[in-house]
Amino acid sequence: MDKKTYHLIENYMLLCMEDSAHDKEHIYRVLYNSLEIAKTENNIDYDILICSCLLHDIARKEQFENPSLCHAMAGAGKAYNFLTDNGFGKDYAKKVKHCIQTHRFRSNNPPVSIEAKILFDADKLDVAGAIGIARTLVYKGIVSEPIYSVLPDGTVSSGENDKTPSFFQEYKYKLENLYSKFYTKRAAEIARERQKAAIDFYNNIYNEINSSYQNGKEELNKIIQD
Amino acid sequence: MDKKTYHLIENYMLLCMEDSAHDKEHIYRVLYNSLEIAKTENNIDYDILICSCLLHDIARKEQFENPSLCHAMAGAGKAYNFLTDNGFGKDYAKKVKHCIQTHRFRSNNPPVSIEAKILFDADKLDVAGAIGIARTLVYKGIVSEPIYSVLPDGTVSSGENDKTPSFFQEYKYKLENLYSKFYTKRAAEIARERQKAAIDFYNNIYNEINSSYQNGKEELNKIIQD
Repeated sequence: MDKKTYHLIENYMLLCMEDSAHDKEHIYRVLYNSLEIAKTENNIDYDILICSCLLHDIARKEQFENPSLCHAMAGAGKAYNFLTDNGFGKDYAKKVKHCIQTHRFRSNNPPVSIEAKILFDADKLDVAGAIGIARTLVYKGIVSEPIYSVLPDGTVSSGENDKTPSFFQEYKYKLENLYSKFYTKRAAEIARERQKAAIDFYNNIYNEINSSYQNGKEELNKIIQD
Repeated sequence: MDKKTYHLIENYMLLCMEDSAHDKEHIYRVLYNSLEIAKTENNIDYDILICSCLLHDIARKEQFENPSLCHAMAGAGKAYNFLTDNGFGKDYAKKVKHCIQTHRFRSNNPPVSIEAKILFDADKLDVAGAIGIARTLVYKGIVSEPIYSVLPDGTVSSGENDKTPSFFQEYKYKLENLYSKFYTKRAAEIARERQKAAIDFYNNIYNEINSSYQNGKEELNKIIQD
């Protein structure tokens, strides 16, 4: 890929991401993760890989405004149109479309090409480790969801089996279990390197909050009279 | 304090915190932290302490809507009016007012009473450790600020000396340096217990992101032709 092509695609991505400093940096991390993974894979079409990474989340805004819309499906169509409108071949645009369509986990639509598998893994890596923790917490702020839920008996829920959304619920439901589900060896390796950071953070925050509630409620019950 | 009084004050707090699940749990953590700290201090007026904890952030909403307003000063006045309107004595309301006014760090208005010092420390403890990291990240989501900044040379800034706001900037500017500034021994002790969780998290996320950028940019430079 030449510089001009890279900047054309990058600028379209930036246009789609306006006002979202957070999402923009996610795109570069996914691109960089992909290139790291690609080093240990064979027969990579770097044009397809780089283009797919840059454009994989261009319909995030549409999904945020209309949650029934899937940003992977919508983004794939948007990318296909952008590419064919800008002189890229239909075969090229189709390959990019496949990568973007399949980057989000749905059992009936898995990534097939190596570029699609790398994008899938690179995107997933950004939910692993400390960066995955940070992105999840930032997202909870955006959608006004709490860090944890308090159970009817007044104790702090670990998040396990929670019905209401919170950071702890998301950790137990999604973040804790993602480490075994990668297509490429290198992504699985990087994820394993990052796993301890996430586990330690969850255990630390749970212990801080839980001990504060336990000790505090015990004291409060001693002080408050009927 | 009797149950009826506790619930009267708690309900007023909940009314002021409407739609803010995050802030509400902060109030309980500050209350519980305060009671833990109070165990090792003498001559505590628990009525003043509990009331001040519950009401210390009741003007957060006003400050969010008008950032030139200080929520500690506004909240202190709001609490004073609520208490005198509800039959609490002026002396009681004045003591609570002092605690709330001085709970936010400003060198010209430090906490003087033991209850004010405990509230100050308990509030600060909620910025320490993993919970402090989590709250800061959630806040970055609410105000649409990024996790880190990228320097003009394309490298990830550690946050040190950053001029633009980000989670890394806040960590370096505020979170990293709060551990030595407590009025009470017990709060300093709890903060020290939590410190490693915060340091580890920052180091882990910085290393994850920095190595991703370094390796990825190196690969990208090899692939992209002029």
